Amino acid sequence: MVSRRIVLAVALATALSAPALAQQLAPPAVPDLIVQKQVFDMPSYTTLGGQTIRNVRVGYQTAGTLNADRSNAILITHFFSGNSHAFGRFAPGGPPGYWDAIIGPGKAIDTNRFFVISVDTLVNLNTGDPNTTTTGPATTNPDTGRPWGMAFPVVQIGDFVNVQKALVESLGIRRLHAVMGASMGALQAYDWAARHPDMVGRIVPVIAAAEADAFLIGWLDLWAAPIRLDPNWNNGDYYGREPPNRGLATSLALVTMHALHADFINATFGRQPADPARDPAAALDNRFRVQQFLADAGAARARVSDANHFLYLVKANQLFVAGGGTGAEGLARIRAPTLLLYAPTDLVFLESAVERTRAAIAAGGTRVEAHRIEGPRGHLNGIAHIAPLGPRITAFLTQ
Amino acid sequence: MVSRRIVLAVALATALSAPALAQQLAPPAVPDLIVQKQVFDMPSYTTLGGQTIRNVRVGYQTAGTLNADRSNAILITHFFSGNSHAFGRFAPGGPPGYWDAIIGPGKAIDTNRFFVISVDTLVNLNTGDPNTTTTGPATTNPDTGRPWGMAFPVVQIGDFVNVQKALVESLGIRRLHAVMGASMGALQAYDWAARHPDMVGRIVPVIAAAEADAFLIGWLDLWAAPIRLDPNWNNGDYYGREPPNRGLATSLALVTMHALHADFINATFGRQPADPARDPAAALDNRFRVQQFLADAGAARARVSDANHFLYLVKANQLFVAGGGTGAEGLARIRAPTLLLYAPTDLVFLESAVERTRAAIAAGGTRVEAHRIEGPRGHLNGIAHIAPLGPRITAFLTQ
Repeated sequence: MVSRRIVLAVALATALSAPALAQQLAPPAVPDLIVQKQVFDMPSYTTLGGQTIRNVRVGYQTAGTLNADRSNAILITHFFSGNSHAFGRFAPGGPPGYWDAIIGPGKAIDTNRFFVISVDTLVNLNTGDPNTTTTGPATTNPDTGRPWGMAFPVVQIGDFVNVQKALVESLGIRRLHAVMGASMGALQAYDWAARHPDMVGRIVPVIAAAEADAFLIGWLDLWAAPIRLDPNWNNGDYYGREPPNRGLATSLALVTMHALHADFINATFGRQPADPARDPAAALDNRFRVQQFLADAGAARARVSDANHFLYLVKANQLFVAGGGTGAEGLARIRAPTLLLYAPTDLVFLESAVERTRAAIAAGGTRVEAHRIEGPRGHLNGIAHIAPLGPRITAFLTQ
Repeated sequence: MVSRRIVLAVALATALSAPALAQQLAPPAVPDLIVQKQVFDMPSYTTLGGQTIRNVRVGYQTAGTLNADRSNAILITHFFSGNSHAFGRFAPGGPPGYWDAIIGPGKAIDTNRFFVISVDTLVNLNTGDPNTTTTGPATTNPDTGRPWGMAFPVVQIGDFVNVQKALVESLGIRRLHAVMGASMGALQAYDWAARHPDMVGRIVPVIAAAEADAFLIGWLDLWAAPIRLDPNWNNGDYYGREPPNRGLATSLALVTMHALHADFINATFGRQPADPARDPAAALDNRFRVQQFLADAGAARARVSDANHFLYLVKANQLFVAGGGTGAEGLARIRAPTLLLYAPTDLVFLESAVERTRAAIAAGGTRVEAHRIEGPRGHLNGIAHIAPLGPRITAFLTQ
């Protein structure tokens, strides 16, 4: 019973970065796409806030071939808890990237036709994952020889974008055919279009609006709160000591729950106890299975994540307005045709917020096409149930 | 600026128990209804789990007059963070009860016609409020002379109901004309109808379904998690020491946010900074106004609340199935005509969960009438925007 429970929890925890689901959903027709992790180095980067970070490093992976005029590049930007592993496998039979169902040879985003790049953001959460390379509070500050901790500058979604811009320019690319991402990845896509309109041919923002409204800012605050309650957090000064993983696990459990929907949670767990021998009514600590799932999912994710990076990611998302400034200004600068994919049951980015974004971009005269993603998972439908949108994505990319 | 911020935060924090809103929304035509807090004592109560609690005390208040055949009593049951102060004022000009807009002389629930009783639950949250009387972990255990703490038995919604049953029976009432409550109050209304069908004439469950599904169980788990992270919680043993009010404040901030909706949060706060002199982009700790609101609302509520009571309330809600047993069994026992009021934008009890309850009660042949509560506040519409439903409530109570 215990082992089944653990297997389930791990399977579902993994679903946050979604390779397990992608594995189920991807058609087995084509051979595995093998990708290699690469690292982009910048001697120094100056943030939008005017602070300089030396030795910036971010990971990335590519598939396909850049054509002669370097016009076939598509950039994939990742979600809050994700990384650049959007497609392919690092070894045959290994776990696929989170959007492997739609990216690869012969797939909706066809790597026989497009050169696809996916990049780790600054302050990426997965500092304990060998396939993530990022720069943030957990990184050694070259000026002190110790981790930055809370001395790391505040970074914004626009900083993630500007580091990506340096990378794509280093590859000789002047203009991206498209930028596509889910959730925080969609924020980056909007920001690319608003901040660097001449460099973006089109965008595919998935499950997100073009600014963080008060509702999102408030929820992000609550996501972060458990970390600050953990005494091991110690105002961010915990490197070389016991990390605040109890708080971080609770934060990640909140993200997990918020990214799912009642349809999935109820169908998966019902009112089953975590342990049939321990009736939840018999003692305060006897749990239901959904409680055990949240605890296990949070703990599993916390083991490879960094609490300060979580706080910096929260801040970057809270600060987000496409292109900076006010939402209206940024959206008015978006000229890239937009394919907006959203989940009507999304509890992170409500349909109403996505609709406001759609209307604002359309009001500027830019072509916006919006389609629903169906599925039981709410926000996470944008990762786990993207496959049926494949033909729409292909049509949009090739028109 | 600071004072305006505090005033706003207090006003909004108060909105959780909603007297401020009721004050705005209540028609000023009738003179203040003055109510007095009373206390019901039980020498001992044995829980559904078979454990005995001595010296059980719960507060209650009444309005109107019990008629000769004692057939005109309506019981009002309160929500998670509320208490028995549903109507009237303790002194002229004092804050009104949370449903004062619909309960009083000449109002939808007319106290010139009905004898209305409202009762504090066991393990009520508001242990620091002089107008709340409850029995729970913070109460002195007569056997030890010290607070019960985590030795207090697990209690269920059915225990709240059974203590209420003892109270109404002590008043000579054999059958309630109606039971009505919002959120956790609605759970009590469903439970009354399923557990004591001969004693309930009709029920008015507002903003809730008739069982805690996995989605609710999971969210309640996350509401409780911050308390357990606060080192002052100390496994529930903190009486006479510094209480875990940082954790409790975060838990209450989560409840506050979850009970509201983007429509209200965005219109109220937008992307304004908490302090115009401290740009949120300039430092990790510089906040938006919605963050300050959540912190202030949580802290204000924590000052009069008890963390262990919060955990016991969470447990009672997680265990809830109308009438105990499985949902289907309990709902099949509901014979009381049901007026189900719900908010389509509710993020705690989703419309789909309420609809399942409606269909299940109706399938048993019981008459169910369902109406929407409109407003920007999501779940909290059931408290703050109940007034327009007044005529429907009156018609249902008098047919």
